[in-house]
Amino acid sequence: MPALLLPEVLEDLINELGKLPGIGRKTATRLAFYILETDKDEALSLAQAIVKLREKIGFCSNCFNLAEGNICGICQNPLRNKKILCVVEDVTSLIMIEKTNEFNGLYHVLGGVISPLDGISAQNLNIEELLPRAKQVEEVILALNPSTEGEATSIYLSRLLKPMNVRITKPARGIPLGGHLEFVDELTLSKAIKSRLDI
Amino acid sequence: MPALLLPEVLEDLINELGKLPGIGRKTATRLAFYILETDKDEALSLAQAIVKLREKIGFCSNCFNLAEGNICGICQNPLRNKKILCVVEDVTSLIMIEKTNEFNGLYHVLGGVISPLDGISAQNLNIEELLPRAKQVEEVILALNPSTEGEATSIYLSRLLKPMNVRITKPARGIPLGGHLEFVDELTLSKAIKSRLDI
Repeated sequence: MPALLLPEVLEDLINELGKLPGIGRKTATRLAFYILETDKDEALSLAQAIVKLREKIGFCSNCFNLAEGNICGICQNPLRNKKILCVVEDVTSLIMIEKTNEFNGLYHVLGGVISPLDGISAQNLNIEELLPRAKQVEEVILALNPSTEGEATSIYLSRLLKPMNVRITKPARGIPLGGHLEFVDELTLSKAIKSRLDI
Repeated sequence: MPALLLPEVLEDLINELGKLPGIGRKTATRLAFYILETDKDEALSLAQAIVKLREKIGFCSNCFNLAEGNICGICQNPLRNKKILCVVEDVTSLIMIEKTNEFNGLYHVLGGVISPLDGISAQNLNIEELLPRAKQVEEVILALNPSTEGEATSIYLSRLLKPMNVRITKPARGIPLGGHLEFVDELTLSKAIKSRLDI
């Protein structure tokens, strides 16, 4: 007799929530019940926020940063130095670098790193769009995450960019400020000692 | 210069997602970026699922089970035994009991248990609506969770129901089937021995 135990619309929401990263069926069920039992206004404003986000925000056709419209705020800003390009993995990295107030050039968001195990090859990234931009600048900073894939992608990109006669740099690697030697991993420490600085 | 780092509509979605139980700011940000970067169709169908759920599903005005419409499928079913009422904490418990195929009566969903520490008193639960229903049945099964609060609520309800001259029962407590004595907690084991059965 209890054929359809959960109403179909509830099942639907559980399935939709379950597609989100890190949300399994159990969490999705809990969230769906919360959405069902909470204020109707709260539930609808969550739905509205999703729709609004997808309607208003897209990606800059120039650098693939988030943009309301066609071109992002950074690309539009006349005060930014158009001769330096900082290549980052994703928008989160871009935001972190912006927060430092240290960089005044333009960005290029790759949209990931080359990772054969995850099925991400160079063709899946915004590399084709990077090359013509790199030709117009004096320096390209490869600020990818210092993971194995990030380092490999940096090497790949630097080989592509070398013939363009542009300065290619990457952020310094070393012991983090405020860090304790005790807690720094061996590889970082050995790299930091190898590239030690005169004082 | 980087005044508004994240676009407002993205901030809004992060805030909305952060209101969900167990979702902190970091997870909310990750989910919001996923919703931003995934297929537009997928993002919109999540939003639609939320709206549909809240439009279509409400609570049965009789037993507070989920219902499409005013009265739920169980209350509407003429084959159910209207002389037994099973009181449960929430819809999840109801679904678990339905899955057993063992119970053919009606339900009453309390909407929680009395828990002074969480600020939930008897007035916050669907107890007032239970009393007139209990008068019309022969048996009330108190199938609340065997937590401290659940047991206390059971005692509270049984005191309210006693004067109605209705049979009041609760599901048997004991060693779970397929369980190993080694892994059963002491309290369950001692209760199981105390209420041992003849074979």
